[in-house]
Amino acid sequence: MTTTAKAFAAHSAHEPLAPFSFQRRNLQPDDVAIDILFCGVCHSDLHQARSEWEGTEYPCVPGHEIVGKVTGVGSDVTKYKVGDLVGVGCMVDSCGVCPSCQENEEQYCTGTGFVGTYNGPDKHLGGHTFGGYSDHIIVKESFVLRIDHDEKDLAAVAPLLCAGITTYSPLKHWGAGPGKKVGVVGLGGLGHMGVKIAAALGAEVTVFTTSPGKRDDAIKLGAKDVIISKEADQMEAAAGSFDFILDTVAAPHDLDALLTCLKRDGTLCLIGVPETPHPSPNVGNLIFARRALAGSLIGGIAETQEMLDFCHQHGLTADIELIPIQKIDEAYDRMVKSDVKYRFSIDMTSLKAA
Amino acid sequence: MTTTAKAFAAHSAHEPLAPFSFQRRNLQPDDVAIDILFCGVCHSDLHQARSEWEGTEYPCVPGHEIVGKVTGVGSDVTKYKVGDLVGVGCMVDSCGVCPSCQENEEQYCTGTGFVGTYNGPDKHLGGHTFGGYSDHIIVKESFVLRIDHDEKDLAAVAPLLCAGITTYSPLKHWGAGPGKKVGVVGLGGLGHMGVKIAAALGAEVTVFTTSPGKRDDAIKLGAKDVIISKEADQMEAAAGSFDFILDTVAAPHDLDALLTCLKRDGTLCLIGVPETPHPSPNVGNLIFARRALAGSLIGGIAETQEMLDFCHQHGLTADIELIPIQKIDEAYDRMVKSDVKYRFSIDMTSLKAA
Repeated sequence: MTTTAKAFAAHSAHEPLAPFSFQRRNLQPDDVAIDILFCGVCHSDLHQARSEWEGTEYPCVPGHEIVGKVTGVGSDVTKYKVGDLVGVGCMVDSCGVCPSCQENEEQYCTGTGFVGTYNGPDKHLGGHTFGGYSDHIIVKESFVLRIDHDEKDLAAVAPLLCAGITTYSPLKHWGAGPGKKVGVVGLGGLGHMGVKIAAALGAEVTVFTTSPGKRDDAIKLGAKDVIISKEADQMEAAAGSFDFILDTVAAPHDLDALLTCLKRDGTLCLIGVPETPHPSPNVGNLIFARRALAGSLIGGIAETQEMLDFCHQHGLTADIELIPIQKIDEAYDRMVKSDVKYRFSIDMTSLKAA
Repeated sequence: MTTTAKAFAAHSAHEPLAPFSFQRRNLQPDDVAIDILFCGVCHSDLHQARSEWEGTEYPCVPGHEIVGKVTGVGSDVTKYKVGDLVGVGCMVDSCGVCPSCQENEEQYCTGTGFVGTYNGPDKHLGGHTFGGYSDHIIVKESFVLRIDHDEKDLAAVAPLLCAGITTYSPLKHWGAGPGKKVGVVGLGGLGHMGVKIAAALGAEVTVFTTSPGKRDDAIKLGAKDVIISKEADQMEAAAGSFDFILDTVAAPHDLDALLTCLKRDGTLCLIGVPETPHPSPNVGNLIFARRALAGSLIGGIAETQEMLDFCHQHGLTADIELIPIQKIDEAYDRMVKSDVKYRFSIDMTSLKAA
């Protein structure tokens, strides 16, 4: 039996999000039913809702930084029981058999591609998936994450499901840790988590920012140093000194200035997709120090659990501003202006008032 | 006591190379004196001689693919004796103390930078170094390579000192070997060595070329397959199938078409520096499969020796066309048109006729 979900949805690219009801599938044997408590607000939500990326299906219910409580489990579910705290991130399914899925990197699924928590193909009901800006969700057990029952601030845990794993995965993959000098470019939703996680991993963290005003905040978040990237002398002084730089900035910018800050064999990893290309990087900056320009996408389910456990052990959550769902368009507008420290999180009890 | 060397030099960017005499330093305690038998002709020689790169010092004696015979050794030299066959590649010195030098990656020396075999600063006599288009050379023992005394075709060994190591080093660094599918882009001086070496390392090799006419040659060199890179359907069929692609093409070209041929975690490694940038690669092609775009520069001295030994064991040399030094400008012109299979090598006895 399907259940009726209350939600907020975009009905077109140019309208504000508005109340919307739809059906969630009936609980399958391997499904977990979750009442959503909080949902973080990711830039992707805005891009999708406003059709800034190709392929938005309307009505669009965004949200893939979900924290909630289990209200029911299917007959085959073994890991979760009613009352457990759980999370759902960017994916709710994948093919399960391709090399990436077999190697716990479902985000790179080459079979069907991973199924997005929203705007993905819904194989149960047809149409497309609806995300976390809703009162409940039904998710396959293997795509559900455990949230420690001791977590105090669940609204601040929610953004870990995307911003946390998107920064944790590349930091781990490229070996951020003790003795490593790591740069984080941009201090927004992704960047502030990158700083916290890299510092907790034991790396020496430097923030690259265009805003001198962000210096104090960067230090408070765990950075040892801040480089104002538009100051040529500061960039020059940093030449050849970084093992790894995590670039969270999605706007087109000069990659060469960052590449030259890397040591031999260093990697500049991009996690934001700009709408128009970055200026083409100078090949010499790659060749003359065997540097690499790479990219990384969220993280696998097992690694997302590892990240949640790591953040719990280190007392890490996102810095958030709690909003009711009714303020979502205002939040989008402020997010575009980077006017939030550093992530909005929606209190889903506000849906009841809708 | 300095010695007079006979050579061919460029005296300006726009004149043909011409006979030239200069002084080599007197033998230092750690020096090896070498009579040059053969010298390969690298694209860099042409760029430098014709001042297509910044900073050419005239007169310019190119040549950094040198094979010769030891005619004298300094009092501290222990590894070589008179009569030994030796090689000299792109470097004749480096700082020796920076991290790269300490880790046998002298090509990435961050102290002084490595000293080029030609057009580098000459700390002994002042001015700049003169390369292998000459009858003899004096080189610090630690930058001299051993050539096996059984090598039959020394003219074909010479190009290993640059083209060989420039392809061997990245192939080894990124793990080309059994079970790995490796692409080599471009079938010129570098590319043909890349194919031979990758195949000898046990990788399954595919050549990417714009020239359908190169198919048979690619297969003969050791490739299992050939992809005509301007045929969209062939490129599409190759999507996501390569572990590593070595791109030897220095002209600006579409990197996205190659990046999409890589599996998750694959690397596209550039070893040619284009005069104008490549079109900027699409960030999505990096992010959605955690791919990397990297570069690599020649190889360290220890690795160059390893490569020479590997090539000897596998019977690998370059495919060359032997020329007298008097034909060097003609060779340059043909090289620009890719009209050589696949490397010119200069018979240095021809200098005696000059």
